[in-house]
Amino acid sequence: MMFIDQLKFDANGLIPAIIQEHKTGRVLMMAWMNRASLQTTISTGKTHFWSRSRQKFWMKGESSGHTQTVKDIAFDCDGDTLLIQVEQVGAACHEGYQSCFFRSVADDGVSVKTTEARLLDPAQIYGKK
Amino acid sequence: MMFIDQLKFDANGLIPAIIQEHKTGRVLMMAWMNRASLQTTISTGKTHFWSRSRQKFWMKGESSGHTQTVKDIAFDCDGDTLLIQVEQVGAACHEGYQSCFFRSVADDGVSVKTTEARLLDPAQIYGKK
Repeated sequence: MMFIDQLKFDANGLIPAIIQEHKTGRVLMMAWMNRASLQTTISTGKTHFWSRSRQKFWMKGESSGHTQTVKDIAFDCDGDTLLIQVEQVGAACHEGYQSCFFRSVADDGVSVKTTEARLLDPAQIYGKK
Repeated sequence: MMFIDQLKFDANGLIPAIIQEHKTGRVLMMAWMNRASLQTTISTGKTHFWSRSRQKFWMKGESSGHTQTVKDIAFDCDGDTLLIQVEQVGAACHEGYQSCFFRSVADDGVSVKTTEARLLDPAQIYGKK
């Protein structure tokens, strides 16, 4: 059976894609794909998503230049989640961090700690184009 | 601001949780939490989820013994996805693989390849209790 036929897109035609840096194992972000953005991701080798808030097809890095080159596309036992290994240019997070997951629960179980240094100033990524 | 107040649960009161093995960086699975299962995860140190298909609260490993001990709970810049580092007992996948993401798209871009060896027979995990 072909890969795409084993996937279960949700009621909105979407599937979540976890994006992982293939060299370090750092999980960078999660975003949503529809069938078209997944097929474009496969055919171009660059990640493409569907923005639920903007209702828009987008290529990661189209504004920032921080593209993701695809190394592997895995899917889970239920066929309802993708795990994509990439090589990330620059920072994955629009706030200038390597990973969008730059904050964790602190040891007290209620407050927040920042776990990464900011790599880039977001104004420099998006503000001066 | 408290951690839980920075999270955005969806229209069904759910948030996706990516589960990663903290020692190896292997992404094991993705499942959904509601506020109660997240709070129980924090208070017990074992992952708890909300099953959308069974409409039921469950602890990972409650049938199989393959529990997950929590090492870190991170959340993304949008506050709508969790990334949880765990120490996994046994196999995360109910099909007996270490990770639920044991299949990938093959080099032809359409067929499927299996990327992990099966660790356990699912019948032995669930069938003989």
